Amino acid sequence: MSRSGLFISFEGIDGSGKSTQVARLSEYLKTQGHDVVLTREPGGSKGAEEIRALVLQGDPDRWSAETETLLFTAARRDHLERLITPALAAGKIVICDRFADSTRMYQGLSRGDLRGVVDKLHDLMIGVEPDLTILIDMDPVEGLKRAKGRQGAEERFEDFGTSLQEAMREGFLALAKEFGQRFRVINGAQDMDGVAADIRAAVDHALAAHR
Amino acid sequence: MSRSGLFISFEGIDGSGKSTQVARLSEYLKTQGHDVVLTREPGGSKGAEEIRALVLQGDPDRWSAETETLLFTAARRDHLERLITPALAAGKIVICDRFADSTRMYQGLSRGDLRGVVDKLHDLMIGVEPDLTILIDMDPVEGLKRAKGRQGAEERFEDFGTSLQEAMREGFLALAKEFGQRFRVINGAQDMDGVAADIRAAVDHALAAHR
Repeated sequence: MSRSGLFISFEGIDGSGKSTQVARLSEYLKTQGHDVVLTREPGGSKGAEEIRALVLQGDPDRWSAETETLLFTAARRDHLERLITPALAAGKIVICDRFADSTRMYQGLSRGDLRGVVDKLHDLMIGVEPDLTILIDMDPVEGLKRAKGRQGAEERFEDFGTSLQEAMREGFLALAKEFGQRFRVINGAQDMDGVAADIRAAVDHALAAHR
Repeated sequence: MSRSGLFISFEGIDGSGKSTQVARLSEYLKTQGHDVVLTREPGGSKGAEEIRALVLQGDPDRWSAETETLLFTAARRDHLERLITPALAAGKIVICDRFADSTRMYQGLSRGDLRGVVDKLHDLMIGVEPDLTILIDMDPVEGLKRAKGRQGAEERFEDFGTSLQEAMREGFLALAKEFGQRFRVINGAQDMDGVAADIRAAVDHALAAHR
């Protein structure tokens, strides 16, 4: 795929401050004259949001891990075709709150034996990785405390205890090691301004390298 | 997968009399003392029917061929896990009105370049073929005449002209040649009793070989 824009994904456990930092980065890039598209997964396009609703509503056990992975891949394919790829082709910066690494991490926790299938499915039907993945890393106890301070509409991904949050953190850190070239791990224990500054530095670096 | 039942799929162009013959075969097998499960695709299980509705409702162009294939594969995976595989494991005969060959045929017509992707996706996430596939082959002009005599709730698969029906017929015949071991081509130009007799003979043969 020929693309001139920059594709940035954000990953991190709940309460890591992703949403706040995504918004701050977007503001910063706009002041620098960039055309920015903010989006999120699962969902992000009209069709993908409908698939998201189908997966997340109702009994959590109503889909097997395999079927759920197929549905999320269908949603990602739609999101990519309808929003991400056209925006990148138009030279925009796309910032996506969660992307394929979240699928890898969640499936890794619940069905580690599926990692090979998840990867093959991704290669076959998606085939795209972000240019830069920002992982906001933080202590899960602190993250859980922050997450509980909010009222989430969908609790599916958030109704977990600390040990599961710890496993998620480890899962993301393992992916950061595996995909070291595109991952930047940001210390989320800093105050918000510090986190934002580190993210800006990582993005400025990626933009300079991307030119 | 260890299975003791027999998995039979029916394929054919619209108006080929599939539904009638599926019902007749089912009655015949029940009189022979078999436990029979009738089902259909797309759909066939609760989750798969919801995915079917998501794909078939609304603007036909709202999903790309790739996304649609992923959604149908998700539906098939659910159908297989929740209905087909357990029924076969319990020694039942499963008769499915359309299965993966319909996906191959339809995608072959609209996006022949996707055949490799469709096959890889099938191998990765489904991996099951029927023991016997009954193709009711007939002249598309005759088939269209019969189809128009009915009032279909979902016209998506039926709102086609004769030349497209002819291409579908050719597509199915090509699959019957490709998968010659499990396909039986039945002459649909006969009267219904003749078609039913040919199908019974094919199924009796498969049951004897399956033991």
